[in-house]
This record gives sequence, structure tokens and C-alpha cells, in this order.
Amino acid sequence: MAEKVTEAFRILQENANDLYLRDHVAEVEGPPDPLEFHREWVSPNVPVIFRNAARGFPAFEKWSPEYLREKIGGQNVTVAVTPNGWADAVSDDGHFFMLPEERKMQFSDFLDRLDDDSQCNPIFYMQQQNSNLTGEMKTLIGDVPPDIDWATSAFGQMPDAANFWLGDKRAITSTHKDPYENIYCVIKGEKQFVLSPPTDLPGMPYKTLPVAKFNEVKSTKDFKIVPNEDHTRWICPDSDQSLPIRLKKLIAKVRAGDMLYLPSLWFHQVSQSHGCIAVNYWYDMKFDIKYAYFSMLEQLCSDSVIK
Amino acid sequence: MAEKVTEAFRILQENANDLYLRDHVAEVEGPPDPLEFHREWVSPNVPVIFRNAARGFPAFEKWSPEYLREKIGGQNVTVAVTPNGWADAVSDDGHFFMLPEERKMQFSDFLDRLDDDSQCNPIFYMQQQNSNLTGEMKTLIGDVPPDIDWATSAFGQMPDAANFWLGDKRAITSTHKDPYENIYCVIKGEKQFVLSPPTDLPGMPYKTLPVAKFNEVKSTKDFKIVPNEDHTRWICPDSDQSLPIRLKKLIAKVRAGDMLYLPSLWFHQVSQSHGCIAVNYWYDMKFDIKYAYFSMLEQLCSDSVIK
Repeated sequence: MAEKVTEAFRILQENANDLYLRDHVAEVEGPPDPLEFHREWVSPNVPVIFRNAARGFPAFEKWSPEYLREKIGGQNVTVAVTPNGWADAVSDDGHFFMLPEERKMQFSDFLDRLDDDSQCNPIFYMQQQNSNLTGEMKTLIGDVPPDIDWATSAFGQMPDAANFWLGDKRAITSTHKDPYENIYCVIKGEKQFVLSPPTDLPGMPYKTLPVAKFNEVKSTKDFKIVPNEDHTRWICPDSDQSLPIRLKKLIAKVRAGDMLYLPSLWFHQVSQSHGCIAVNYWYDMKFDIKYAYFSMLEQLCSDSVIK
Repeated sequence: MAEKVTEAFRILQENANDLYLRDHVAEVEGPPDPLEFHREWVSPNVPVIFRNAARGFPAFEKWSPEYLREKIGGQNVTVAVTPNGWADAVSDDGHFFMLPEERKMQFSDFLDRLDDDSQCNPIFYMQQQNSNLTGEMKTLIGDVPPDIDWATSAFGQMPDAANFWLGDKRAITSTHKDPYENIYCVIKGEKQFVLSPPTDLPGMPYKTLPVAKFNEVKSTKDFKIVPNEDHTRWICPDSDQSLPIRLKKLIAKVRAGDMLYLPSLWFHQVSQSHGCIAVNYWYDMKFDIKYAYFSMLEQLCSDSVIK
């Protein structure tokens, strides 16, 4: 029976690869028509880069460090601080799921710290995902739109959240998935996404880990690891070589002016050039037949199945 | 492990029922906007009746028996003939998958036989699915369109086939699925569909059966069962009470002037009022993530899994 389930995983991945996935992330010049976007990309759950689709945003011309210092330099923002660049990720020793220290600071101080390349400087990343673009950073609306018009038309609703991202080249977002349809717009610099489809779930080395938080000790500048009461399931790379399938990994390099459509439930690891600025729009995903199938796959991948 | 797979089937059906399926087939007045059609029904794979969406077809007013006799009465058509109304279905004794006798006759003779309610009369059904509306019956194009404009726009392509259906109230199309997106338009009378979603596959009692064909013996008017060399897998109602889930069954009553969107891979049994006339349009389905998941489900349902 275990072999039968493994064979089902293999057929799932093989059909996904042969029938509708590609060996690279598709690229289209400019923004799509809403119906074509829904038919060709959303409904089949396939990522695509719309090259230069964000060039029309005023932010594309305006968002220099000087402009941002002037416009929002005095504003308090929330920044993720870590000693190693890994926030929301497994600790170096593999024992904890690490949350970053969340530090309030003036935006201009944050930019100063980003420019400081002294060795003892921790790594700073504005990476909040609480719709900070319509919250803390709402004075920037106008430079970027409150929604992506063709996506709003395709999804039939406004985004659920819009987030502002700015950070260090050493900051890495570890592999995870979101229950959202994601339109990711790079304004300055470049982001790199490593993408694996939801159908690769059986190849994802999930483990349950205790949760801890980084906390910088003011006197020594060292970071303590402070466990809390929670546990979470997270993907622990290289923790398990016995998984039934090998992951497909697609690389998406999203440059200034581009938009990435990152479909719901796709696994993604994200890195970036230093000082890269991006905004993303999360639209609610549909909990439809695709999600029902995914929930079945999750059940089949639960620990007691394969092992 | 078998329990784990059964539990996965149960979670699949439960999530399908709780999250996006309804207890009835949705109804919308008139034809939809193409993008809304794709977003609300095609992408989530949900059936819907567009009430009165076919009322604008000239056929809706024109297609009386008299009109059809005059327009195509002399034309040769292919008719499925059976002793019991079940073509492409399991034989009464459960031993064979039965193909109908396929008889060429003049359309006016077919109408005569349909009106003949003498006891020894076999059951006649125009039910060819070889795009006969653009083949044998192509003189009717004009009375009905060659495609459904909003569906062609949504799917981004013309239909792969269009079929003409006219038959006896005793003719029943046994439960099966098609690898097509189906727009089913009733012109006269009423069709009734019993629908089950693709996620109910684990509850479908498939069996592999030898194939045979009905053949009327001219002298006695009895039907012989003539086996051929083939085998096929078909759904055999009541053949297995040990299946892991109970089927969800939705009833769709599609009346003259209505269109049913029957999503790809939905199981359907079809019956009709006497002399019901319908046309349907098959659009290619996408072999995308939904299909990849379905292929996994098929693998898990293959004989050696549960039993």
C-alpha cells in the first residue's frame, strides 16, 4: 500500500511536469488582459513574469533613498532583525523555528543600518506581511496603486493585503507557501524566487519544531534564542533524504519594473539584491477543487503514511 | 495504510462538499460574462444552469417536428437502437458493456419510429458524439450557432465538437464522465442530469467488462448480444457496496431554452422527456493541475488499493 501511495505521488508529479508545467517560469511582455490572465495562469495555477508591467508606477521613477528619506524618513516602521538573515526559518542547528526580533525604528535609521556594512551589524529586513502598505506605509499609496487593476478584475475583488518589502541582500525568506494569489512587483533592484509547485508537497521535508525568537542583547550585540510555548510545522531542507519525489525547482528572476504572478500554494524561497524594494498584493485564493485535492495530498503526506 | 487512504478520500469529499460544492445545481438567469463564467464556474469546476440563455437561438421557435421533417426529413442520419434504452451501458445481466446497434435511416423514418408506441418497437436515440451537428446535421447550423460566443471567449478557442440529440423518453445515458468542458443546450422538452463531482471517484463502482453490441434479428425482432474482442472499464451501479465514500448526487433539470455548464470530468447520468431535442458543445478541457490531481486519485482508486 505504501508503494501504491508513492506511485500515486510519482504519477501526480509526472503529469504535472509533462502536461502543464514548464522547465522555466514563463515570461510575458506587459500586463495581461484579465480573462487571459485567469484562463492561462490563475486557473491552471502556473507562475508567470509580466515583464515591465510595473513600469508605469510613479514609484518606478521616484523611489530613490533620498526621496523615501524625505517622504517617510521620520516615520516609525517595523523591521525584522536577525543575526543571520533568516527570519521565519529553521535555526542553524535545526532545533527551532526562528522568529525575527521585531524592532520599531525610524525609517531613516533603518536606511542607515542598511548602508552600514560593519561586521557586527545584524541584518535588517522590512518584511511585515500585515498589509503595511495600507498601514504603516500608507503615505506611499499614490506612488504605487492600492491594487493591480487587471488582477482585481480577474479575481473579482480587491486585494486582501498589500505589503512593502525593503532589505538586505543577506536576508532570505525560507521556503514556504501562502494561501493567497500573489502579485509581486519589484520597484528597485531584483528578487530571485525558487519555486516548486503544490504537487511537489510529497518532496517537502516538513518537521514540527518548537518556536523561538531572536533577541539582541544590547550590551554584547549577541543574539539570544528565546523559545516560547508554540510549535509549528516548517520545511527543513536536507533533513530527510528518503522523501518519495525530488523537487522541481524553477528560478524566477524578477527585475525592477516586473511583476511576478506567484500562484496560491506554490512553495517559494526568496532572496534579493541589496536595498531591493518591492510591493506585493495578496488576493484571496479560492478554496475550490484544487484546494480540496491539495488537502487530500496533505493527508497522504502526513507522517504516518510513508514511514 | 489502507485506512489512511480511505481517510484521504473522506477529507477530499468533505472539503469538496463544505468549501465549494452546493446541495443543488446553481442557477443564473441568462448568459454570463466570459470572465465571470471562467472565474465562478470553469476554474472551480462547478456546474451551473444558465436559465433561458438559449432562447435567442432561432431553433427555439423553429424546431417543430414538421419543420425538421421539411428541412432534413430526407437526410440519412445515424441512430442508436437498443431493446431497453441503455446504449453505452452495462447489460441487464451485468456481464457486458453494451454498444447500441447503429442504424442509418432517413430522418423522417426516425421521427416515425419515435412516434410509434407499439410494444415491439425498439428504442431509438440520436446520440452520436462525433460532432454530427457540423457533420450529418450541418444544414441545421444557422438555427443554432456553430459555437457559444461567451464560452468560446472564456475558453479562448472554438468547440472541439458540437452534437445533436433527439430521442425516446426511455433512452438513458448511463453514468460516465467526459474529458471535455460541456455546454448543453436544450431546445425542446427537458433533460435531467444526475451529477457527481470528480472528487467522488472513490465512490464509483468501476468494473472491467467485455464489450458487446446489440443487433436486431430482422425475422424475430429480438436483439442478439454480439461480443467483440474489446474490454472497457465502466461504472456498474450497485455492483459494490464496500466503496469508501457515498456519492453526492445533484439533480439538474434543464428545460427548453436553458443551458447547462457541465464541467469536465463530472460524472453524469442523463434522461429526457419524449422527443426532447438538444445540442451540446464540447470545448477541450485543460490538462492542468486539476487533471494531475485527478490522475493521482485514479491511481489511488485502482483495484489493488482499497481491496
